[in-house]
Amino acid sequence: MTDVVARLRAAVGDRVDTGAAAREAARADKSGFRADARPLAVVHAASTADVQAVLRIAHETRTPVVARGAGTGLAGGANAGAGEIALSLRGMDRILEVSPDDLVAVVEPGVVNADLNAALAPHGLWWAPDPASRAISTVGGNIATGAGGLLCAKYGVVRDAVLGLDVVLADGRLIRTGHRSVKGVTGLDLTALLIGSEGTLGIVVGATLKLRRLVQGEVCTLTAVFPDVRAAAAASAAVTATGAQPAVMELLDAAAVAAVSAHLGQVVGAPGSAQLTVQTDGPAAAAEAEAIAAVLARGGGDVSLTRDREEGERLLAFRRAMHPAIEARGTALIEDVSVPRSRLPEMFDEIARVERQHGVAIPTVAHAGDGNLHPNFVFDGAEVPQRIWDAADDLFRAALRLGGTLTGEHGVGVLKRRWLADELGDDQWRLQRDIARVFDPHGILNPGKVFAPES
Amino acid sequence: MTDVVARLRAAVGDRVDTGAAAREAARADKSGFRADARPLAVVHAASTADVQAVLRIAHETRTPVVARGAGTGLAGGANAGAGEIALSLRGMDRILEVSPDDLVAVVEPGVVNADLNAALAPHGLWWAPDPASRAISTVGGNIATGAGGLLCAKYGVVRDAVLGLDVVLADGRLIRTGHRSVKGVTGLDLTALLIGSEGTLGIVVGATLKLRRLVQGEVCTLTAVFPDVRAAAAASAAVTATGAQPAVMELLDAAAVAAVSAHLGQVVGAPGSAQLTVQTDGPAAAAEAEAIAAVLARGGGDVSLTRDREEGERLLAFRRAMHPAIEARGTALIEDVSVPRSRLPEMFDEIARVERQHGVAIPTVAHAGDGNLHPNFVFDGAEVPQRIWDAADDLFRAALRLGGTLTGEHGVGVLKRRWLADELGDDQWRLQRDIARVFDPHGILNPGKVFAPES
Ligand SMILES: Cc1cc2nc3c(=O)[nH]c(=O)nc-3n(C[C@H](O)[C@H](O)[C@H](O)COP(=O)(O)OP(=O)(O)OC[C@H]3O[C@@H](n4cnc5c(N)ncnc54)[C@H](O)[C@@H]3O)c2cc1C
Ligand SMILES: Cc1cc2nc3c(=O)[nH]c(=O)nc-3n(C[C@H](O)[C@H](O)[C@H](O)COP(=O)(O)OP(=O)(O)OC[C@H]3O[C@@H](n4cnc5c(N)ncnc54)[C@H](O)[C@@H]3O)c2cc1C
Repeated sequence: MTDVVARLRAAVGDRVDTGAAAREAARADKSGFRADARPLAVVHAASTADVQAVLRIAHETRTPVVARGAGTGLAGGANAGAGEIALSLRGMDRILEVSPDDLVAVVEPGVVNADLNAALAPHGLWWAPDPASRAISTVGGNIATGAGGLLCAKYGVVRDAVLGLDVVLADGRLIRTGHRSVKGVTGLDLTALLIGSEGTLGIVVGATLKLRRLVQGEVCTLTAVFPDVRAAAAASAAVTATGAQPAVMELLDAAAVAAVSAHLGQVVGAPGSAQLTVQTDGPAAAAEAEAIAAVLARGGGDVSLTRDREEGERLLAFRRAMHPAIEARGTALIEDVSVPRSRLPEMFDEIARVERQHGVAIPTVAHAGDGNLHPNFVFDGAEVPQRIWDAADDLFRAALRLGGTLTGEHGVGVLKRRWLADELGDDQWRLQRDIARVFDPHGILNPGKVFAPES
Repeated sequence: MTDVVARLRAAVGDRVDTGAAAREAARADKSGFRADARPLAVVHAASTADVQAVLRIAHETRTPVVARGAGTGLAGGANAGAGEIALSLRGMDRILEVSPDDLVAVVEPGVVNADLNAALAPHGLWWAPDPASRAISTVGGNIATGAGGLLCAKYGVVRDAVLGLDVVLADGRLIRTGHRSVKGVTGLDLTALLIGSEGTLGIVVGATLKLRRLVQGEVCTLTAVFPDVRAAAAASAAVTATGAQPAVMELLDAAAVAAVSAHLGQVVGAPGSAQLTVQTDGPAAAAEAEAIAAVLARGGGDVSLTRDREEGERLLAFRRAMHPAIEARGTALIEDVSVPRSRLPEMFDEIARVERQHGVAIPTVAHAGDGNLHPNFVFDGAEVPQRIWDAADDLFRAALRLGGTLTGEHGVGVLKRRWLADELGDDQWRLQRDIARVFDPHGILNPGKVFAPES
């Protein structure tokens, strides 16, 4: 083991960090879950050559490598433990090219999403994936998790916004997938396979991103308060059914509204109220907002509408305070189920049932435009207690019954690998695991993540 | 071999067709390429159970299986030869569900693209992928090739329009990939991997499709005639650069204009003229069309603009006549390179160079909105002559040099497998081939397609 560290030092010098603080930090991400022990070392890669050197040593010594962006993940995917190398890509943060003509940017993986977008804005461009963590998460992490965000019902997720990847394989070789052209079907779509692969297939060291032009015109913001979450969910489904395409449509259930109200000291509606926040943009923003306001009012909502951007941001601030409000209450297990849009009201019924049956409160926020819910399980202490896992298990199975999925955008990591085969079925689980083995025959890439060892 | 046919008969009865006509037809697609000999039999599958039964027999007897939709492919991918089973999915053409609320349709693979869209229209819905062959090609074939079309720069390709697949594996087992929810990142994205896999990974027996609402508002159509193709290509790049998003933007070079003019008996511009046809739609259609007209005129185009749908279809008919016009001249090898949008003018320079150096005419049409070109090599006789392949080879390499790809939408099949490793690199080629082997350890799924045997 010290031999591995010595070899790493010989290869990449002082970019190998064996300090206690760095190794301790690499045990955790933002999921609240920690690896059993500290990793061997954290390597702060500065170049593709560094990554290749690390992987060559890892390959020869059969040492596990855990890729790490900013460590904001919510599934424990970046957590590195005993005997492992934590490979941080955060320092590889250059924007290598921005091409307004081709609507393409070429970047290193460590660039923070918001920093990239700040650099694109003067060109009138943006990269659409906008996880709520965009100010703190890396593009490489966004790609490795297949991140979504608030705007993605209208503007797409990471999967829709990547043209090609540079990837270091388990033995240190470098491949380039995809192409710079927007179209291309040459061979198998490895770019798509790598998106969301959570560090199990290869290390992303470069990405060719598909950009959009900044949306012109005004932004209108609506909030609507409903007597209960079912009414809010039904109203959001009614909005979708009109064919309107809001840029943002976020739903807070009663427990979420109560948590944020308490946190901000700002009362919203009568006790038990749920809240919907909607933004429209583009050339038809105002007309769409008016139409949506009418639908929400018909659905029993108490609606406010503004065409002022700043006032709109103030309305949206209530939604954005959800995460801090929950964190203030204790440790949170932030879940991430997704269901077909029409099943959103039923999924909220299921959440209420789980709350009752397991005696837990589950404040929930949903990206209502695409049926993705984040139920928050709050508890005391650092470890997720068994009763919380039991409730979560019940909730996952409900989502699958409704035609949904375990994770809409956060990924499987360690925290959800127990349920992976329930969703995929055993045949597909094994097929996926065997595909991962083609990339990683010795099982050194983020072992134990996504694919739990067979029991 | 007769044993295989006997076993197929025992399993699926008279859906096994050993007639000479059916077997002869299964040797070819629309590429002009034919397999060496007739396949053993054509099986007209009527159900998933049929497909599973065929694959179980194929697996046990190690008999190759070539999936076939409508046989409109342009890469020889569906062509079945000696000792092979041609498995036709064309008869599995039911539309099982249309859900306007979830914007989802569940279909069997054999449904023809245009038939599906005819069934969706009364619901105010459509499935966006619109290959020029939509009236004759199947949804399953569209998925297996990752098809694009005229509208895809604005509305996406197949890859953007499929949520999940039901797939029969090489040994007859059935898996379901993806989900009905619009979001989901559970495990590896096998749905994306299967799209464009050309029958080499599994047989698609069902698909959950992501629909769009029919676009409201008017459709405006422009044509512009330019003195030469470079001016037309530069003008189309200028349109893209304004941020306008035309629904259609098709470019015909001088040789293509000449071919269509001769075919329709309709003169367009002076000799050497190139033509651009543009359609805009949606709420801002008229404003966008006016802006585009100004850009095209500034670029030296002689512009006509109509807001009348039927008149627009008449303008577009010139472009749509390209394929029949070429067919009327002889056998055509229809190529499919794609380059970054900004390199379109350079790619046309390269085509002119290849024409000069190899002494061949290459009438070319391009989906100018996304940089995808279809150079047509016309020749006499059934076999592609070597000098045509030499010219095509030169052209492929030019596209790769410009940052492009061998095939934007038609796929690799047999006709382009020689160049696959040139684009992917040897490491990635082997990685892809090894992934295919995980799905198909005995190499019975469309062998010799996409991945040529290693030399
Ligand atoms: C407050 C908050 C809000 C959030 N909101 C959202 C949201 O709206 N939508 C959403 O999708 N997520 C959200 N997340 C989760 C998280 O931010 C995302 O998963 C993000 O994409 C992770 O990026 P990261 O750089 O922090 O990656 P990390 O956490 O460091 O890593 C995540 C996974 O990717 C792998 N990985 C990282 N970089 C690479 C690389 N270069 N090559 C290969 N593998 C790599 C890791 O091994 C790990 O498995 C939120 C998190 C927080 C704390
Ligand atoms: C006039 C004309 C215009 C065209 N325009 C376009 C265009 O604009 N864009 C475009 O992308 N293509 C175009 N094409 C090419 C062709 O129509 C497409 O590739 C189409 O998607 C093929 O569908 P098909 O049903 O005919 O498939 P086939 O030709 O029968 O098969 C194509 C490939 O898919 C595999 N396959 C078929 N069905 C299945 C299944 N169920 N499961 C697994 N594998 C399967 C086959 O093995 C084969 O490799 C055009 C062709 C013609 C003749």
